[in-house]
Amino acid sequence: MSFRATVLTLYPEMFPGPLGLSLAGEGLAKGLWSLETRHIREHGIGRHRAVDDTPFGGGPGMVLKPDVLAAAMPEDDGRPRLVMTPRGRPIAQKRVRELAAGPGAVILCGRFEGIDERAIEALGLEETSVGDVVLSGGETAALLVLDAVVRLLPGVMGTEASGEDESFEGGLLEHPQYTRPAEWQGKAVPEVLTSGDHKAIACWRKLMAMNATRARRPDLWAKYVAEATRTIDKAGKIT
Amino acid sequence: MSFRATVLTLYPEMFPGPLGLSLAGEGLAKGLWSLETRHIREHGIGRHRAVDDTPFGGGPGMVLKPDVLAAAMPEDDGRPRLVMTPRGRPIAQKRVRELAAGPGAVILCGRFEGIDERAIEALGLEETSVGDVVLSGGETAALLVLDAVVRLLPGVMGTEASGEDESFEGGLLEHPQYTRPAEWQGKAVPEVLTSGDHKAIACWRKLMAMNATRARRPDLWAKYVAEATRTIDKAGKIT
Repeated sequence: MSFRATVLTLYPEMFPGPLGLSLAGEGLAKGLWSLETRHIREHGIGRHRAVDDTPFGGGPGMVLKPDVLAAAMPEDDGRPRLVMTPRGRPIAQKRVRELAAGPGAVILCGRFEGIDERAIEALGLEETSVGDVVLSGGETAALLVLDAVVRLLPGVMGTEASGEDESFEGGLLEHPQYTRPAEWQGKAVPEVLTSGDHKAIACWRKLMAMNATRARRPDLWAKYVAEATRTIDKAGKIT
Repeated sequence: MSFRATVLTLYPEMFPGPLGLSLAGEGLAKGLWSLETRHIREHGIGRHRAVDDTPFGGGPGMVLKPDVLAAAMPEDDGRPRLVMTPRGRPIAQKRVRELAAGPGAVILCGRFEGIDERAIEALGLEETSVGDVVLSGGETAALLVLDAVVRLLPGVMGTEASGEDESFEGGLLEHPQYTRPAEWQGKAVPEVLTSGDHKAIACWRKLMAMNATRARRPDLWAKYVAEATRTIDKAGKIT
């Protein structure tokens, strides 16, 4: 059984979009994963197929109706259900790996001011965010999450990338990379990288990864340090 | 002068993609912003238009060449230059607002194992990430960032949303939302929201926003608390 993605959206024409090309697109064509879109509007209510209404308690914008979302949702077949929203927990590579190892995912793309809270509870939606930005809707976030998941599916990446030795997997950002020309605009590649000394290269890369993480991501760095100090105590004993 | 976006990519067909529809697409059609794609491959080297090469020091994958990226980059006209990479600083709404207030942005989409570090320095690229996930390339990340920026451009949102009272703007996640039906699947809307007591509603929403932030985003919550305790001391004096 290949990975089955279902996306609930008011803009089904946005899919597969970028996922119809490159690795994800080839995987889709080969049947390594499948993509179904469900148009929320088709489950709208009344002659105008209303999908939203004003928020109780007042305020700007419109809120997606719980009855409409329940009608648009496919039957529960065990796949996790995500809703893309800035209120959610930030997606992380760990969750991406879990999703890729499962049967698929149902992703609801929010629009307007939000989604009725009762629908989130009743439908068991996992509120998921992608960075602290406000989007016009959840569609670009859903495309991003699916891209991350699909590349990990068996057969999609081929030999191009290993899926290992990647950012976040070791708790650090990746080290800098250099390729030919060895000298460019008067700047040479760091000497160690052309030394052939594999231990020195590994050590330099580790230090560069630590430097970048410390400077750019105090949150990841704090976790890394906590982990490192937990596994090796002052006497050098691993605990 | 409207906002000018330029995207450097190996998959120009991925653009405008989802940004050709909905608010962003209408804004594009009206000339409220413009989108140029530059195909990195067209600046590749030799008969095979090579854009990448193996990394110095060894390791899996391929690295985008600095000379090719420099050739693909448009002339410096003052627009910020971003490169989408998991090594970058996480994008945040504050930066999105700054970008939307400026003349435009140039966004380089990474592919393969990375980008030659010298190109990042020489071209002044702002390394930017969107969540701790590994993508097949920077394209879905670029689409997401542009979506966030474009919706803030004058004329794009119209009266549909105010751009205020939004997630992150006050340092808290948004409060839950409810709309009709007032009772759904045996669940009623919280009483306070139908009370007509605007002070009570504002207070309830604030508490719910605080609860969600504390539970889901310890990072944002810590900042919020630090800010709150800095502005009002124990004696109630604002400092």
